[in-house]
Amino acid sequence: MSEILDDPIRALSEYVGHASVSADSSFASGINGARDFACARLRELGFSVELVETPINPVILATRGHESWPHLVIYGHYDVQPPDPLDLWDSKPFDAEVRNGRIYGRGAADNKGPQIVHMSALSRVLREHPDLPLRITYLIEGEEEIGSPSFRGFLESRKEALKGDLLLVSDTGSPGPDQLVVTTGLRGLTAMEIRVFGPKQDLHSGVHGGALLNPLQALMKICSSLHYDNGKVAVPGFYDDVLPPEQWERDELSRLPLTEEAYSNFLGISDFFPPPGFSALEAIRFCPTLEFNGVGGGYQGEGSKTVIPAEAFAKITCRLVPNQNSQDISEKVQRAILGACPDLVRVEVEIKGGGDPYVVIPPGKPGSKGNETNLMKKAFPLAEDCIEEAFGTRPIYLREGGSIPIIRDLKEVAGLESLMIGLFANEDNLHAPNESFHLGIMEKAINSFESFFKKLAS
Amino acid sequence: MSEILDDPIRALSEYVGHASVSADSSFASGINGARDFACARLRELGFSVELVETPINPVILATRGHESWPHLVIYGHYDVQPPDPLDLWDSKPFDAEVRNGRIYGRGAADNKGPQIVHMSALSRVLREHPDLPLRITYLIEGEEEIGSPSFRGFLESRKEALKGDLLLVSDTGSPGPDQLVVTTGLRGLTAMEIRVFGPKQDLHSGVHGGALLNPLQALMKICSSLHYDNGKVAVPGFYDDVLPPEQWERDELSRLPLTEEAYSNFLGISDFFPPPGFSALEAIRFCPTLEFNGVGGGYQGEGSKTVIPAEAFAKITCRLVPNQNSQDISEKVQRAILGACPDLVRVEVEIKGGGDPYVVIPPGKPGSKGNETNLMKKAFPLAEDCIEEAFGTRPIYLREGGSIPIIRDLKEVAGLESLMIGLFANEDNLHAPNESFHLGIMEKAINSFESFFKKLAS
Repeated sequence: MSEILDDPIRALSEYVGHASVSADSSFASGINGARDFACARLRELGFSVELVETPINPVILATRGHESWPHLVIYGHYDVQPPDPLDLWDSKPFDAEVRNGRIYGRGAADNKGPQIVHMSALSRVLREHPDLPLRITYLIEGEEEIGSPSFRGFLESRKEALKGDLLLVSDTGSPGPDQLVVTTGLRGLTAMEIRVFGPKQDLHSGVHGGALLNPLQALMKICSSLHYDNGKVAVPGFYDDVLPPEQWERDELSRLPLTEEAYSNFLGISDFFPPPGFSALEAIRFCPTLEFNGVGGGYQGEGSKTVIPAEAFAKITCRLVPNQNSQDISEKVQRAILGACPDLVRVEVEIKGGGDPYVVIPPGKPGSKGNETNLMKKAFPLAEDCIEEAFGTRPIYLREGGSIPIIRDLKEVAGLESLMIGLFANEDNLHAPNESFHLGIMEKAINSFESFFKKLAS
Repeated sequence: MSEILDDPIRALSEYVGHASVSADSSFASGINGARDFACARLRELGFSVELVETPINPVILATRGHESWPHLVIYGHYDVQPPDPLDLWDSKPFDAEVRNGRIYGRGAADNKGPQIVHMSALSRVLREHPDLPLRITYLIEGEEEIGSPSFRGFLESRKEALKGDLLLVSDTGSPGPDQLVVTTGLRGLTAMEIRVFGPKQDLHSGVHGGALLNPLQALMKICSSLHYDNGKVAVPGFYDDVLPPEQWERDELSRLPLTEEAYSNFLGISDFFPPPGFSALEAIRFCPTLEFNGVGGGYQGEGSKTVIPAEAFAKITCRLVPNQNSQDISEKVQRAILGACPDLVRVEVEIKGGGDPYVVIPPGKPGSKGNETNLMKKAFPLAEDCIEEAFGTRPIYLREGGSIPIIRDLKEVAGLESLMIGLFANEDNLHAPNESFHLGIMEKAINSFESFFKKLAS
């Protein structure tokens, strides 16, 4: 079907060569090049390709197969992170280089490599079975690395085209080349910013210190009231809707080939601080958090400046787990902050929104509802088999601590549940210098997906 | 003696015209010009003038009179603050302009105007009494606005020349043109910086949030432990050496023509927060503080970034009152911080030093020791009389909340007690755009000092 896709290393090298940095408009030609590359490959595979305009970068929407066939939607993104800092790269970020069993370049893993895996596998299958009875819709956006600002609008406008039986995503991680993970959950998020206002302007802390409450002091008292000493969040009602993980989820986690010692070494900390009753590896998946992402106020430079600042801020995000609701939690946190604020200063809480948590329960596992689509019922065990066949180990079903809002959006708008198969690992340096994609994973994953696509349609 | 000083507005205009900004080396010619101007005036007055080199800007050291005469030392500084932001000035900062009964220009009040007051008064006195039996040593530095980094070294090298009976300083404030203040105390200072270290690098708060203690969370808990809810400092032993103010000091303060309402309006706050047992106007003079001057960590830009920062900092200064000791207090605060820090993060406390508080008790007031020099015993009541004569009200003896380390240094090194007569007011906009000096204060103050110098020598 596609000669280029027959040589996946060449294909990925070419795709990486288009410097599709969405955060910087000076990379516009790279964005266009990467989009054209993806469209060309999809056309070679027999897809009819449409570019859907958005305020920033068009979304590729491509389809093959009859409307009556089972419908698989595949998500990817053609944009990449900026390459900075350039001097820390051992080879040029947009000249892909193969060494040490890896292919190096910006976007090699996030998300161009996994897209080449899917497409190369499809190319093999469609060459053999041009009439494969599986409707496939590709959805490849160009704004993922800047937060997918146009995605929700795109979805709303094209939700009919996206009504399907299952979403396939390979934009998550796995522990390493011998052990893949099927991601079954993502935490939700709510972001907010607190601003505390004191005197009408910055004051000299010598001349006026002692007369008034320092906004920084007030901010820190407020923020300190939001956690108990054991680390749990002290906001009333915060845990009301939290569902405990299923026992099978804890059992799956115990199969993760990562010791607590290795994890604490990776973080560079002397000890963990999970909430009571959870290990650190459980806490990041099964527990909600309230984190301070940035705090500031007063003098930030070198040395000292004797000032009582007029205001101070804290940026907070909460990570949410089922069945917490983003709006509900942000209101509870807001209430706690307003309640903790002394009368002597004024506080503003800006709720910046976020998204609810997402969990998919593999069909047949405890907690599954049995109302899954036939394609979904088939796809999960099939993916497990195909991965075990190529990698020698069956995948672990694992929730992740991060959030991918588009997954939740696709469920809400188009009713799609996700099969998330992680193809990159920690060593791939996503968003960092020397990003790379593991060639062993690439090869095995193409074999897995070849088998998967073929059998899914049969 | 000096024609220029006979016209103090002209003299001050010329002095202001030399843009003597010490913080910016591009103003070197202004620094030289201001220094030359001051030296020329002192020579006209019959002083023998020496320039004492320092690593930055030379100190003017000038003397008149016999060694056997009573010895008055007068302090001033010829450097000024930077003029920025320039666009907020209504006239050019270094082209002095008279309007509304004020003379506008950078340094007009801080500290060039008060120097012209002293010199113009001296010019009148010395014209009439060329052999005035008062030894006077002028000490005018050029680094006050950058923290007097060379001053202590200068003092140590010239302490014999500075051994005297009293230091006269007019570099403090008064409530307004009808009421002067004799400043009797300055708070001490100790500065320190806390740094809290967590993971070895910034972490994604989604992927890892819940596994570890966030350094910002730890920092805020530590900082919040340093104050009780009533605003008092919660550091063990912090108040051990604090002496309560004398009743006469509280009585003097009650004469200050500033209502609490006017003060809170000035600060722009809904209410004060003094420690129990003190009013706000008392607290800033008689109570020690622990203030957060700057706190930072994590993402500081617009919007949100989901990060757990590797570290966070807080800049702290304590203001100290008699008989607290700067070194002792910084060690106590350090101990409290180390004790409040959870094991899960690492904290560093850098003590940046400071200075002890300074208090001078006017001879004869309760608490005075009776061992003052004769010149000091004479000068305080004389200044009171001379000020009352010209201003119509006797001055208030008042401690200030700020710190002027050189006052304490001059006491420690040269044994000098200070008579601090405040000639600028809040409306003078020190360190801000549209700095000005009140012409009414200028005229009355010259008359006061003429009388003061004449009678002090008689």
